[in-house]
Amino acid sequence: MLAETVRPVLESEIAEWDLEADVVVAGYGIAGAAAAIEAARAGAEVLVLERSGGWGGAASMAGGFIYLGGGTPLQKACGFDDTVENMKAFMKAALGPATDDEKIDAYCEGSVEHYNWLVDAGVPFKEEFWGEPGWEPAHDEGLMYSGGENAAPFRDLIPPAPRGHLPRMDNKKTGERGGGYMLMKPLVETAEKLGVKAEYDVRVQTVVVDEGGAVTGVVARRYGRTITVRARRGVVLAMGSFAFDEAMVRDHAPVLVGRPGSAIEAHDGRAIRIGQALGAATAHMDAAEVAVHAAPQLMVRGILVNAHGQRFIAEDTYPGRIGQAMLFHQNNEAFLIIDQQAYDEVLGPDATGTARRPEPTWVCESADELEEEMGLPAGALTSTVNVYNAHAADGSDPLFSKDAKWVRPIRTPIAAFDLRGMTSGFPLGGLKTGVDSEVLHVSGEPIPGLFAAGRCTAGVCAGGYASGASLGDGSFFGRRAGMSAARR
Amino acid sequence: MLAETVRPVLESEIAEWDLEADVVVAGYGIAGAAAAIEAARAGAEVLVLERSGGWGGAASMAGGFIYLGGGTPLQKACGFDDTVENMKAFMKAALGPATDDEKIDAYCEGSVEHYNWLVDAGVPFKEEFWGEPGWEPAHDEGLMYSGGENAAPFRDLIPPAPRGHLPRMDNKKTGERGGGYMLMKPLVETAEKLGVKAEYDVRVQTVVVDEGGAVTGVVARRYGRTITVRARRGVVLAMGSFAFDEAMVRDHAPVLVGRPGSAIEAHDGRAIRIGQALGAATAHMDAAEVAVHAAPQLMVRGILVNAHGQRFIAEDTYPGRIGQAMLFHQNNEAFLIIDQQAYDEVLGPDATGTARRPEPTWVCESADELEEEMGLPAGALTSTVNVYNAHAADGSDPLFSKDAKWVRPIRTPIAAFDLRGMTSGFPLGGLKTGVDSEVLHVSGEPIPGLFAAGRCTAGVCAGGYASGASLGDGSFFGRRAGMSAARR
Repeated sequence: MLAETVRPVLESEIAEWDLEADVVVAGYGIAGAAAAIEAARAGAEVLVLERSGGWGGAASMAGGFIYLGGGTPLQKACGFDDTVENMKAFMKAALGPATDDEKIDAYCEGSVEHYNWLVDAGVPFKEEFWGEPGWEPAHDEGLMYSGGENAAPFRDLIPPAPRGHLPRMDNKKTGERGGGYMLMKPLVETAEKLGVKAEYDVRVQTVVVDEGGAVTGVVARRYGRTITVRARRGVVLAMGSFAFDEAMVRDHAPVLVGRPGSAIEAHDGRAIRIGQALGAATAHMDAAEVAVHAAPQLMVRGILVNAHGQRFIAEDTYPGRIGQAMLFHQNNEAFLIIDQQAYDEVLGPDATGTARRPEPTWVCESADELEEEMGLPAGALTSTVNVYNAHAADGSDPLFSKDAKWVRPIRTPIAAFDLRGMTSGFPLGGLKTGVDSEVLHVSGEPIPGLFAAGRCTAGVCAGGYASGASLGDGSFFGRRAGMSAARR
Repeated sequence: MLAETVRPVLESEIAEWDLEADVVVAGYGIAGAAAAIEAARAGAEVLVLERSGGWGGAASMAGGFIYLGGGTPLQKACGFDDTVENMKAFMKAALGPATDDEKIDAYCEGSVEHYNWLVDAGVPFKEEFWGEPGWEPAHDEGLMYSGGENAAPFRDLIPPAPRGHLPRMDNKKTGERGGGYMLMKPLVETAEKLGVKAEYDVRVQTVVVDEGGAVTGVVARRYGRTITVRARRGVVLAMGSFAFDEAMVRDHAPVLVGRPGSAIEAHDGRAIRIGQALGAATAHMDAAEVAVHAAPQLMVRGILVNAHGQRFIAEDTYPGRIGQAMLFHQNNEAFLIIDQQAYDEVLGPDATGTARRPEPTWVCESADELEEEMGLPAGALTSTVNVYNAHAADGSDPLFSKDAKWVRPIRTPIAAFDLRGMTSGFPLGGLKTGVDSEVLHVSGEPIPGLFAAGRCTAGVCAGGYASGASLGDGSFFGRRAGMSAARR
């Protein structure tokens, strides 16, 4: 019974502690690993409790992007100038509205140091830039644009720099070690060397509080048994998002119902509810990362239109921005219009890596015919194509400012991919934390002894997203959570 | 000190109670008045605490729409058929996504009874229907469409019926008594007749809880002094939305920052934070009512376009849907395009009630010229007008299905109103409550002794809105809050 609820348990009700440590970390994904390392380095005895059978969380299954900048050694080695100020300006412009500017300032000012911290911990980055459109580099390149910095509307406002830092994959040896695994493995090894202990198959159910309301431990379940774990200095919640709690998704981010993506089932929102049961504030619970399931190389060469045949975004921006625009603002409906030349360039017989050769939903001899096949009213799509083509003939896209490199009239034969419903994503909102990762009560003060990081918190993203922002703020503010907990 | 925080105060810390009653209601707007009446009718001694100098809240300043249907006497008197099932279907389709269907079912099933309850309490409704586009009837008519039931996309899916019930205004006698006042006045008089007591200038700061966590009173401020108020049976929170708490707006509904509308400064979100400090769940904190500041009579006769010159909605729908589409999905940017004939019909010398005669931002001899004046790329607006006109010549609008009654080619001279930024609104999210208005803890159970209604709760609207939904669910679930509190 004790363990079923997220309500806090009074310390006076705990007969004995089954386990104890200075700092107890709930969850062994990116935020938990970073917290464990820093807490241990600060001299704390650290115990990580992980509900699954091993470390990794969603991070170890992810592509592995970490959003870093301000002039990291990797950026410099690849020939890119970046500044802390440009990084701040971009993040505040692209990840809002209503970003937590204090958090973004700290994140950007600490970004180069954070890169070095990762490298020192053994995370490998290959000094090579990948400049093609896509979700990830084609090979093991270490740097890529991952947020739309070099596309409209940001390109001309803020000097762009690529900030997607990707740990070097190890595909050749194992066939399956992606960037996220190559990030997590050295961090966990670093934690182990520092004496961090981990207990697996332990599901944290709630926290223990003393009479003053400070968090002093957790209650968990292990193989059906309730266990109590004392935290002498503090508890760090690092248990992931609420992507897989459908009730929470309905109440807070209903456009995501039925389409969780880049998340794991362990992301049940429990850490958020544990915090809320203590009176913690939340923020931006409606925000979400959204992936659109379409090939970026095709998108840049065509036009994306909504259910009314209208364009709605620069097709060469970060595909996650396209996914957000489509799910949040276009009723999750879009079509990709391309011509034969675009298809051949990307998927034709001379193209490389075309094992998967997606077929368009409709192929027609003219835009008129395509419009009719798609069931659009006369003129809806053809007027869009005509206006686009008229400007494209001059190499310009005055409506959405797609880069001239990708602007070319759409000829015939012409085809459309039906992308309706083809999105998935995970929520970005969660517990409201301060810059030192202290969980904030709705009254404004920190909840003593409770810290949190990763996707159970509202991090640097308030609305927008960039690939690498989650592993980025999870690791950055995870470190701060560990330091803050150890300091008490 | 005791009174500054929203954290609950332990009953054991209360030395003495300054006031007491069976049921204590915080806030004397629509939800508070309805709760007070029902609690008193259930035999409870009721005390209402109101922070301002008099009853009324936002309700008494509102137009006064109450969303009711399923065959009310007023609907029948005006010749409209409506059913509970059609009302449910519309509300679930229009007020979502992810509406609280149990709440909507209860609301629709009880709607006729609720209408009669209002009439019995003395709320006057004139048996006359107003069928013109607009936010409110031009005179004192009692019934009007207020949610887009008779416009696309709902018109052809669910048999439409007008459900905006408006208390008869009393303009002639006082010059300033709107429908909201005519709703509140008889309800407050009814409460007074039932023996309900009210104390004014009393700001509820937080609640008092006993050792078991049940709410047993409130702590408030009155002229700088802290007072304690015991609630023998229960507390009802009815303190309005968080429209005027900018920090909460930033964290939960950032598109509303700087544009609160149809709200009063007392709407500081405190009731929500009081609940959250007890572990209450919230829902749909990002949702908002949004008004667009443009004349509906002009909008139906023209086309609304976004910053790319594209149409985005049926211009004859409920203007609150237009406001939501514009603020949430079009970056708060829109232009209204009309021709001379439309202007003259609505605002010309023969039109009535044209004391305010808004002037277009641009007036041009052709769509080409207008497009250029507006700074839109060549073809952006002209293609929109051409496609619209081509179908309008046949009286149809296949793109957005505006009613044929309003579909007519847009001729020259042609003009545009710049509506960018012209929205305001109030948030719809708040405490999560059950169908009996019990405030729900994040663990799922009710918080004993705590009830809530009105805009400090998430009501029948999860995303969409209809005029009358706030006074509607505030009064309907306010009654239930009063009954539930009295029952304990």
